[in-house]
Amino acid sequence: MNPLVQFLEHLPPHIPHSVDEFDRRRHLRDFTLPRAVEHLPLLVAYPRDADQVAAVMKTASACGIHVVPQGGLTGMAGGALPSAGSIALSLEKMRGIEEVDTFANTVTVLAGTPLQAVQQAAQGADRFFGVDFGSRGSCTIGGMLANNAGGNRVLRYGMTRDQVLGLEVVLADGTIISNMNKMIKNNAGYDLRNLFIGSEGTLGIITRAVLRLFPAPRSSNTLLCAVDGIDQVHRLLALARGALGAQLSAFEVMWQDFYAITHDVTGRSPLSPEAGTHFILLEALGSDEQADGMIFARFAEQAFEQGILQDAVQAQSLSDAESFWRIRDSSGELSHLWGKGAVVNFDVSVPVARAEEFVTLCREALARDIPGGEAVFFGHLADSNMHLAVPDPSGQQREAICRTVYATVRAMAGSVSAEHGIGLDKRQYLHYSRSEAEIALMWRLKQMLDPQGLLNPGKVLPESLA
Amino acid sequence: MNPLVQFLEHLPPHIPHSVDEFDRRRHLRDFTLPRAVEHLPLLVAYPRDADQVAAVMKTASACGIHVVPQGGLTGMAGGALPSAGSIALSLEKMRGIEEVDTFANTVTVLAGTPLQAVQQAAQGADRFFGVDFGSRGSCTIGGMLANNAGGNRVLRYGMTRDQVLGLEVVLADGTIISNMNKMIKNNAGYDLRNLFIGSEGTLGIITRAVLRLFPAPRSSNTLLCAVDGIDQVHRLLALARGALGAQLSAFEVMWQDFYAITHDVTGRSPLSPEAGTHFILLEALGSDEQADGMIFARFAEQAFEQGILQDAVQAQSLSDAESFWRIRDSSGELSHLWGKGAVVNFDVSVPVARAEEFVTLCREALARDIPGGEAVFFGHLADSNMHLAVPDPSGQQREAICRTVYATVRAMAGSVSAEHGIGLDKRQYLHYSRSEAEIALMWRLKQMLDPQGLLNPGKVLPESLA
Repeated sequence: MNPLVQFLEHLPPHIPHSVDEFDRRRHLRDFTLPRAVEHLPLLVAYPRDADQVAAVMKTASACGIHVVPQGGLTGMAGGALPSAGSIALSLEKMRGIEEVDTFANTVTVLAGTPLQAVQQAAQGADRFFGVDFGSRGSCTIGGMLANNAGGNRVLRYGMTRDQVLGLEVVLADGTIISNMNKMIKNNAGYDLRNLFIGSEGTLGIITRAVLRLFPAPRSSNTLLCAVDGIDQVHRLLALARGALGAQLSAFEVMWQDFYAITHDVTGRSPLSPEAGTHFILLEALGSDEQADGMIFARFAEQAFEQGILQDAVQAQSLSDAESFWRIRDSSGELSHLWGKGAVVNFDVSVPVARAEEFVTLCREALARDIPGGEAVFFGHLADSNMHLAVPDPSGQQREAICRTVYATVRAMAGSVSAEHGIGLDKRQYLHYSRSEAEIALMWRLKQMLDPQGLLNPGKVLPESLA
Repeated sequence: MNPLVQFLEHLPPHIPHSVDEFDRRRHLRDFTLPRAVEHLPLLVAYPRDADQVAAVMKTASACGIHVVPQGGLTGMAGGALPSAGSIALSLEKMRGIEEVDTFANTVTVLAGTPLQAVQQAAQGADRFFGVDFGSRGSCTIGGMLANNAGGNRVLRYGMTRDQVLGLEVVLADGTIISNMNKMIKNNAGYDLRNLFIGSEGTLGIITRAVLRLFPAPRSSNTLLCAVDGIDQVHRLLALARGALGAQLSAFEVMWQDFYAITHDVTGRSPLSPEAGTHFILLEALGSDEQADGMIFARFAEQAFEQGILQDAVQAQSLSDAESFWRIRDSSGELSHLWGKGAVVNFDVSVPVARAEEFVTLCREALARDIPGGEAVFFGHLADSNMHLAVPDPSGQQREAICRTVYATVRAMAGSVSAEHGIGLDKRQYLHYSRSEAEIALMWRLKQMLDPQGLLNPGKVLPESLA
């Protein structure tokens, strides 16, 4: 029998779903480029709670139909793209804040809730949610958890993984694993949460979570500065860590060529691109405006006195700070700004001490391997996270560019994914960053939890172990 | 054939080991009380690196002999006690700091290294290791990781789990899973680390780790204060979180009867036990002595102005601060101080908002169930971690006391282990804090990774699922 017909026959009728083409088209694509081959999901299920997710999985399991979980479809590695013959399981109807606990400093939230709603709920209770990035209005908590999303403030608040106290997950066979723990110290048995967080929907479907909240910051200080040479970048980072302590919340490095592009086009930036080889956007979040102002002023003074800074400008207002951030965030519009046509964007990590070596080797390798090959670099240096953008005017060099960049990452003992995940696009490079024994163990976990291979097939893990 | 004879025949001769009774006796016991039935390990292996650990496991696997991994033997739940017919695998010869990376802010360390050596290595590089507790001189990093140890500064720096970037583990079959990652952002594939961290040596043997370091604090402010009623405790915590932000590093609550015992006997404490119903030891660690002094003074002022504090005294020197901490740390000598003979100590968690309800219900339940039943309470309230001590003068009530206390924890949706682990002593209570589905999944993980049941048998997981 046709698997879809069989699935529809078995699916309990109260579970919302659609086979309408318009609905299915809404679930065809994520934030990545359109593909040569795309697969329209056979059906979209819209469960309303974990029991309904479990019912979908039981039905899928009985019919052997593949299920692709989807959140806000803002992923950058194709992790939520439907595979051939699959159904999409959208968590978009499972949204809502169940509770903000101001004693435990937690928020309990359904997986389909957008990040921004969590941030607002935190703010409403004079608290702060630690993760933030550009797609906050569309991306969902479930997708962030599946992906272990990062962002700009990992340095201070950690990755999405670090926010999680409790989790509810539905396994491939429909078993609900629920531990909505609110307690920071809890050593009762194995940690099951972290198995699912970052597994990109291949081991289970995250349906609910208890997340940590932090005190709302009451002071913010932002500095944009130019330094000359990577040694000064590292000296500045060490000084900032020592002088600002836990207040240091961002340390974004832009290499000169990246900075020059955004400067020339936007005219927004207060420092000349000639001012240094590296431009750093540095932010501190604290609890006391006056005292933190003293701390920050002393830090900046020391950085000048020690000859670390070539030039610097401190934000005098929120709007100053926002304009500094727009310089950094112009990375999202690079293909427009740069005027070189399409670009390939990378999200990788390399050990902090080797950041400049990576930049040099990458430039050399691209010049050698790719006709007209070049790149601009920027990143969350303190977290080891480097981004680079490589022009691909013809749109034909993507594969070759990826091979070159990931080979350099591999040579640096780096990671082919810092924060975007592996998804569909990087699975063939996973072994650049993980050993054969590790990938074999990942496969054993996959086979144990999803022996029929129903959940998000073809994602994260490479086809074979060879 | 005798399993030991068979094991000795197969063990590669270069692997250090002993069957000497004196050596075996050194590996008989941990920090918990002596047991009615104890098992001398048949042999102690002292491997020097992961390859030798792997060789021991391959030999054990071939002979079907049980292996109990041991660190500093400072555990509080019997997790490292030899089982009948087992060999001990001691990591005591695997000690040493391999590297301190001041760019990445990491320390790479062998599992048998004592905590204190890691703290000193951090200090030597003007850095700080975030976990600390009393047995720092004897406990090992491997044991801390196996146990996910907590301590006094979890509020600010997290549990041991939160310090780990990279890990090397030997599986039951001798496979070495190594990922000595130094990068904070690394989303390449499944997180395997957290499966082993906190699994108390039942899923693998941790042999090496890359741990995070923090900037060395440059200011420290400590306040001992008395408040009247639990509402004021919560108000003080909320105020401290907001005003001190990320500096808040300890918020230790002592209920009046606990405080009175240590006050009366030691005479060390500057506040009268009549001053309040709860006594709080509060610490802030910062980066700037002058500015942080201002922040702390303003916080204390607000707490007085808002009528939260009945009385308070701020440490004027390091020795003041140490004497305040001795009051809190006298919990270790309660059985001496209290004069009621032996006491049973508990390490549990309850949701922060229910701390006082837990105290009340526990007192009622002990008075009802145990002849002369009473308890004193103290704990890391902000982390949800409660400790209590219950006198057991006859030494005969231990089981009954445990049943009563853990039943109360269960009724509060709490955790039977906050930071000490499950080990041997709490396995029968694991299902008070974890669901049947969760324990079934834990068993499936155990069976996948250790199908012969060789690693630390009889620990963590309850005998059956019933």
